[in-house]
Amino acid sequence: MTHAAEMLGSYPRSLAGLDQAKLAECIDACFDCAQACTSCADACLAEEMVADLVHCIRTDLDCAAICATTGTILSRRMGSDASITESLLEACRIACRVCGKDCASHADMHEHCRICAEACRRCEAACAGLLSDLG
Amino acid sequence: MTHAAEMLGSYPRSLAGLDQAKLAECIDACFDCAQACTSCADACLAEEMVADLVHCIRTDLDCAAICATTGTILSRRMGSDASITESLLEACRIACRVCGKDCASHADMHEHCRICAEACRRCEAACAGLLSDLG
Amino acid sequence: MTHAAEMLGSYPRSLAGLDQAKLAECIDACFDCAQACTSCADACLAEEMVADLVHCIRTDLDCAAICATTGTILSRRMGSDASITESLLEACRIACRVCGKDCASHADMHEHCRICAEACRRCEAACAGLLSDLG
Amino acid sequence: MTHAAEMLGSYPRSLAGLDQAKLAECIDACFDCAQACTSCADACLAEEMVADLVHCIRTDLDCAAICATTGTILSRRMGSDASITESLLEACRIACRVCGKDCASHADMHEHCRICAEACRRCEAACAGLLSDLG
Repeated sequence: MTHAAEMLGSYPRSLAGLDQAKLAECIDACFDCAQACTSCADACLAEEMVADLVHCIRTDLDCAAICATTGTILSRRMGSDASITESLLEACRIACRVCGKDCASHADMHEHCRICAEACRRCEAACAGLLSDLG
Repeated sequence: MTHAAEMLGSYPRSLAGLDQAKLAECIDACFDCAQACTSCADACLAEEMVADLVHCIRTDLDCAAICATTGTILSRRMGSDASITESLLEACRIACRVCGKDCASHADMHEHCRICAEACRRCEAACAGLLSDLG
Repeated sequence: MTHAAEMLGSYPRSLAGLDQAKLAECIDACFDCAQACTSCADACLAEEMVADLVHCIRTDLDCAAICATTGTILSRRMGSDASITESLLEACRIACRVCGKDCASHADMHEHCRICAEACRRCEAACAGLLSDLG
Repeated sequence: MTHAAEMLGSYPRSLAGLDQAKLAECIDACFDCAQACTSCADACLAEEMVADLVHCIRTDLDCAAICATTGTILSRRMGSDASITESLLEACRIACRVCGKDCASHADMHEHCRICAEACRRCEAACAGLLSDLG
């Protein structure tokens, strides 16, 4: 359980034009994906075949950094410039798609990649959903 | 729902001497507290009496940054040097205690501070718990 | 003096199609802008007229987070997917433009905003330069 | 060239009991070390003998995250609680010492580790310097 939805509900000003439940869901998906990608990169480093997983490790690390930043900026209730929020959501959607595909491609061999791909797909969908509402 | 516990369970090597459920709980508490503190700082900025909340905003921002970093490093399964993990957990425990107290002191006036204090206390307890297991 | 250029020069593989000096310059500009924006947000919080600077503080914090992430991902030598790098550079360019404009609009009153606007413009130009090389 | 010293000089309030030049130097050293460690982890991933460098990669990533957070919090002019600043500086000093030693141990084989060890030592010294002034 996270406090994201509750925090959004306690905001002192109204948040025009945005579905609060969707925003909370996207924030949660961003931080969850940041965690899963960080953990997946580390699990890949612990595999004996680490040399074959170098590309996955890099993509995991990039995706983790972008998701954490996106979760942070969305937590600021999108009070900031819409062009910043939209371009970052787009970068996050792309990072999750690329990382999710990469992890999915060896999900059969590595359980951590299977779970991470799941977290990436959930975050990609959440970012895409917010983007279509904003557009 | 987060994937932290599932990710820990999929790790290719065993994690000696650490309670996996407690570790997952601490990771979740760190990212949740990072989100709540970021959101609380922003909600404080949206209050009319913002000038009276300057100290709370600063503490929120510091606590958010430290919690996000602690959640990230704990997600690397503590494979790194124990002295790094312990000193960062200690910094996180302190940041959560200070921020939780600050937010609690005006929880009556601002619902976002009340919720944030709750997230801080949960994270402070989780860090203290891991530290005592490591000690 | 930073070690970015030296680190890029020590990379074990060749970095096709990218001007190394420009990449190092962009990395330095990203971390410098992250620092300046963080510092400017805090200086705004220390001003007596903080209530008038709320928008600037938010934009500073968003820009700081995006610049730090962009500097980090560029430090991974752009080994990752080009679509991730490009979309993040675009988000960073936009954040620096928006924040630079906001800070420039009250550069006469606040020296920290004048300096921060300078750091933002330098980073915006560096991101735009890399983007045009990649395009 | 960074704007850290100039930003500190533009602060609207006086900063009692802290050497401004030393603080600016420590901020610069933190962001530089975050960059060098991120870059070193990536260069290690590009080495053919990556399997032998797994521990170094992990320590680099931890050190990078802690240094970036420390640079960020120091950029807030230490307006926040002293116990937070001190405990984080201590964690940063430890991370730089551990990572610097690890990198130094294979500096002969990998130029990127040699340069990274240099950045770590500079940051470790800067953190130790600030800590002794605060103590």
